Amino acid sequence: MAQIREYVTDNAGEFFEDLKDWLRIPSISSDPDRVADVRASAEWLAAKLRADGFPVVEVWETGGGAGLPSVFAEWPSGDPDAPTVAVYGHHDVQPVTPLELWQTGPFEPTERDGRIYARGAADDKGQIFFHTLGLKAHLAATGRTAPAVNLKLIVEGEEESGSPHFAALLREHADRLACDVVVVSDTGMWAKDTPTSCTGMRGLIAAEVDFTGPHGDVHSGSFGGAIPNPITELVRVLAQLHDAERKVTLAGFYDGIVELSETDRELIAKLPFDEQEWLGNAKSTAAVGEAGYSTLERVWARPTAEINGIYGGHTGPGGKTIVPSEAHAKLSFRLVAGQEPTEVAKAFEMWIAERVPAGITAAVRFEGEGVRPCLTPLDHPALQSVSRALGRAFAEDPATPREILYTREGGSGPEADLQDVLGAPVVFLGISLPDDGWHGPNEKVDMDLLLKGAEAAAHLWADLAEHGLG
Amino acid sequence: MAQIREYVTDNAGEFFEDLKDWLRIPSISSDPDRVADVRASAEWLAAKLRADGFPVVEVWETGGGAGLPSVFAEWPSGDPDAPTVAVYGHHDVQPVTPLELWQTGPFEPTERDGRIYARGAADDKGQIFFHTLGLKAHLAATGRTAPAVNLKLIVEGEEESGSPHFAALLREHADRLACDVVVVSDTGMWAKDTPTSCTGMRGLIAAEVDFTGPHGDVHSGSFGGAIPNPITELVRVLAQLHDAERKVTLAGFYDGIVELSETDRELIAKLPFDEQEWLGNAKSTAAVGEAGYSTLERVWARPTAEINGIYGGHTGPGGKTIVPSEAHAKLSFRLVAGQEPTEVAKAFEMWIAERVPAGITAAVRFEGEGVRPCLTPLDHPALQSVSRALGRAFAEDPATPREILYTREGGSGPEADLQDVLGAPVVFLGISLPDDGWHGPNEKVDMDLLLKGAEAAAHLWADLAEHGLG
Repeated sequence: MAQIREYVTDNAGEFFEDLKDWLRIPSISSDPDRVADVRASAEWLAAKLRADGFPVVEVWETGGGAGLPSVFAEWPSGDPDAPTVAVYGHHDVQPVTPLELWQTGPFEPTERDGRIYARGAADDKGQIFFHTLGLKAHLAATGRTAPAVNLKLIVEGEEESGSPHFAALLREHADRLACDVVVVSDTGMWAKDTPTSCTGMRGLIAAEVDFTGPHGDVHSGSFGGAIPNPITELVRVLAQLHDAERKVTLAGFYDGIVELSETDRELIAKLPFDEQEWLGNAKSTAAVGEAGYSTLERVWARPTAEINGIYGGHTGPGGKTIVPSEAHAKLSFRLVAGQEPTEVAKAFEMWIAERVPAGITAAVRFEGEGVRPCLTPLDHPALQSVSRALGRAFAEDPATPREILYTREGGSGPEADLQDVLGAPVVFLGISLPDDGWHGPNEKVDMDLLLKGAEAAAHLWADLAEHGLG
Repeated sequence: MAQIREYVTDNAGEFFEDLKDWLRIPSISSDPDRVADVRASAEWLAAKLRADGFPVVEVWETGGGAGLPSVFAEWPSGDPDAPTVAVYGHHDVQPVTPLELWQTGPFEPTERDGRIYARGAADDKGQIFFHTLGLKAHLAATGRTAPAVNLKLIVEGEEESGSPHFAALLREHADRLACDVVVVSDTGMWAKDTPTSCTGMRGLIAAEVDFTGPHGDVHSGSFGGAIPNPITELVRVLAQLHDAERKVTLAGFYDGIVELSETDRELIAKLPFDEQEWLGNAKSTAAVGEAGYSTLERVWARPTAEINGIYGGHTGPGGKTIVPSEAHAKLSFRLVAGQEPTEVAKAFEMWIAERVPAGITAAVRFEGEGVRPCLTPLDHPALQSVSRALGRAFAEDPATPREILYTREGGSGPEADLQDVLGAPVVFLGISLPDDGWHGPNEKVDMDLLLKGAEAAAHLWADLAEHGLG
């Protein structure tokens, strides 16, 4: 096991130089002028994987003619009992405006204080790239010519554009991507000295509600006080969205959700959480939410109903004495394991229908079919393997793994598609830090942690082969 | 008394021709290109009043250099015990767009079906002008060389621009305008066969509320469910604006208001009110309001809290998964006699302050100082005189006045300034009909009703002189 660290350390220099080459390609998927760069990024990665020895490397076109290809690579173990692992990440990056806030060019990777600064350094090229070093360390340490697991890589090219064709691509190539577990390397950990693995993400369903009262604005002097005002009525309805304990009042909203176990709560409580610092990041002055849960529990493990926007009547300067014709609200629900976006959509439609007041016409629309939540239980064999692999990578002596803690992701992502389409549990192996500047200026990645990521990957393949996914 | 009708009938032809001359002057006060026309309209009226025999006629400049003068005229009775009456109206008119909707030119007065079609025919030149004929009928019928009351006219030139300088003008000339009663001729009556007088108008105070949560939009995945959302919080507060009976919940809101008497309610119930037709005008499908009151009572005699506009967070197309930074609402309160706009403003500020949730910063702003309500009680001698005068004008035989009913105005206007600055009660003598098209295309006035207005004015001066104002 010590050999892994030795190999990683010995080959770190070349690894960082290669990563910087990749980071120089401005693969911004949302910028139509960068389509060729996204393709160049895919081709660069494909060439690198071929050079590393992957027997199968393919550049996959996605639907819709967007020209933002994914890279698929496969390296069979040769062992008929070996589990099959699919590693997910993406090679496209976010836009870089406002450029003037960058200390050095976003596509001129620069080392400062043990970090590499560049767009994509952490999100997500760096975290895909540590797998190349990890795999070679795994081969070197085990003396094998093929990995101990059947290894597949699927590296997307349009994640930063909302993955519009990714689910279709997964379905199209479901047989090629068939696997026992998905390892997502597109997240982070709690802190440099607190290694963690993410165990799940919240789902999402977004809705818009329209309330129409009079079929045109009318004079509030002539009619005010005697006809329903759609803003007043919408406000009266939406005020019922949460009860006094800040629980969401949709019928059946909490039915069947995976509640936090005592162990889950103890492990979350072990994280060195500074609520004042967190509130600073939340730009807020008070932590408010569902009664009976801590702040981290609320954002990680509890579903929510959020009003993202509201508008109606006169919104320009000054006053206007009208009973307005319309009022609108945009809402989104974050969901946790056990909730189905389509079920919540139905419950919300019914919730509104039951509350439409006299004289008001209501309409409810949903944005798409939503995103399903995902959660891998702490006792799942794959998560146990990830924990041990991370524990070894971050231990003084890899033979004695240190304790790993667990986070969740309050947001929602295409990881749920992987879980659903491939029918495999999702685990997370990520080393980015909360202040790495994802989507912002001066994105960076910690170079020590990239090497820890490589070590963890090397340990993980051996561990999964040894313990299986029984 | 029959002489009045005879005089009015005999002189109707000349009266209508003169009125059409005045209506040809496009005195649109809100149009900077029509400033000279507003002045010409004032000079036209001044010349007419001088020709009619008013010993004092002055064109008064208003403040602010707007160049939209008022006309003041005075004709003392000569009788030391005669009451003093100030008649209020305005000679400026609304804009006329969209022109293509007018059947005949807005400044080419045209007779059709017993009506004169022109901008200002009803609002308000026609209704000021019937006083000139009424006064001459009064002199002819009584054989007097001066009116039986001390008569003052104040005809504003910027009413359709919001009367920005009118209160100041009243204060400047308070001694010249001193009177025992103000007769406002700038409203209407219920229907051609249902003569009514308006007895009051609601007041108004408008406010804007700002709720700020996070000091910038934040990601609803990372923070949603654990920090206060200013839209959700504003909605939860504003939903408390009305209780289950639709009463406004501001502390002391109803304290000291003039409640409807049994007689008030009986008289309102006598009006031939068609709720379906009213709902059509209200563009609404349901009559909803304060429990225990009819629709007319709600809009005429009950105070309200109306949300005129609301906005916050993402209001563009599609969704945006944020906890927004801000939410705003624009509100206005219609007030009834016994309520003070400044007191209601204070109560609303306190109401909000008592409800600001943790993590939210709230601000409340008011638009100006509001408009006070006005109400003249049914048993007030001036209103009794107006009722008898209207009753005679609309009676088969003027010696036997018919019954008059009473309306109120749900809106708010500068009439309250007259009441406040001049310290005199306000009564309403108007003959316009609800479908006269005020502010819209094809504004018109019923020619029979203009003559009824003249008759009523002639009866009113004699009645006030006879009965006094006790």
